[in-house]
Amino acid sequence: MTTDPARPPARRGPYAKSRRRRESIVAAAHEVFAARGYRGGSLQDVADKVGMSQTSLLHYFPAKSDLLLAVLHLRDSITADGSPRDLSETLVESVMRQASFNETVPGVIELYTVLCAESLTDNHPGLDYFTERYEALRSSYLRAFAALADEGRLRPGVDPERAAATLVALWDGIQTQWLMAPELVDMAGCLRDYLELVVLPE
Amino acid sequence: MTTDPARPPARRGPYAKSRRRRESIVAAAHEVFAARGYRGGSLQDVADKVGMSQTSLLHYFPAKSDLLLAVLHLRDSITADGSPRDLSETLVESVMRQASFNETVPGVIELYTVLCAESLTDNHPGLDYFTERYEALRSSYLRAFAALADEGRLRPGVDPERAAATLVALWDGIQTQWLMAPELVDMAGCLRDYLELVVLPE
Repeated sequence: MTTDPARPPARRGPYAKSRRRRESIVAAAHEVFAARGYRGGSLQDVADKVGMSQTSLLHYFPAKSDLLLAVLHLRDSITADGSPRDLSETLVESVMRQASFNETVPGVIELYTVLCAESLTDNHPGLDYFTERYEALRSSYLRAFAALADEGRLRPGVDPERAAATLVALWDGIQTQWLMAPELVDMAGCLRDYLELVVLPE
Repeated sequence: MTTDPARPPARRGPYAKSRRRRESIVAAAHEVFAARGYRGGSLQDVADKVGMSQTSLLHYFPAKSDLLLAVLHLRDSITADGSPRDLSETLVESVMRQASFNETVPGVIELYTVLCAESLTDNHPGLDYFTERYEALRSSYLRAFAALADEGRLRPGVDPERAAATLVALWDGIQTQWLMAPELVDMAGCLRDYLELVVLPE
């Protein structure tokens, strides 16, 4: 996260201070949940990391689940899901750009992988977020593959709906393997190979 | 898990009783870890489920991590990773058989998904198991794809090593999506599509 030089300087005073406090809490929670999971990481761990009492922390985030959602939305602002940046960027370009970017932020990928699977456990407050996220991702890639099919650029026989689910699945799964053995797993190469199999050259 | 009628009846006496006790503890831990994760599920939860004190449980499994490894090995005995059952079964047949079987055991798939991702968190006793498992799976599918390449049945341009990592990744990722939305995700269809893309018909 860098400061945008085109932006006006942040406002001073109590509001700006409160916002910075919130940001530092969310950044600390991001580290704690990536290292220990949501269930394994306590509010006390987060409070300790920002040098604040748990009572003060609860003033900013009344429940641990509020902090989880703030962390997930921070993640969304860091990674952009490989959705096309503008109309001139192709599906393949945007996936490759995002995959290369992800290799620079293993902590963010770990957080996502850990919380996503953990959300399958009983009464986890992250389940709706991940379920909706998958539906949105599949819809987005379905539209991209359907548009390619209209242009005659989807390999004959490829089903756009299953291809969308497959791309999302492959991406998730290869990230897990890469986190465990980054020197053995060619994350971007596997994604590129798949896209080259299903998308015909212009 | 069914009883094999071809097997001799289990031995009676203290050894058989102890073995049954271990089995019921591992089955209970399987449920607890699938529902709450390894960190979120306590030894007390497991002890309560089998109606035993935590002290008695520790007689069978001295540490929680021993119980985790026993649960992972039980999982291995339930699912067989889609490796060919015998020489006459092709790669495609064995993957499809295993994928169809997995749809009948969502609890086992959930356990695997939750523990695998959780093993990425700090000092998790399951990390070596999963890291080694991925290496073994990639090697196994690499051999299968390399053999198909030797027969001229791998699509030209497909790299057997990346295809092996891709198949494993797709399988993991599609299981996660399927656990969240079984009615929306065609797990076996996505795996079949991928194999049909890379493996040429005989």
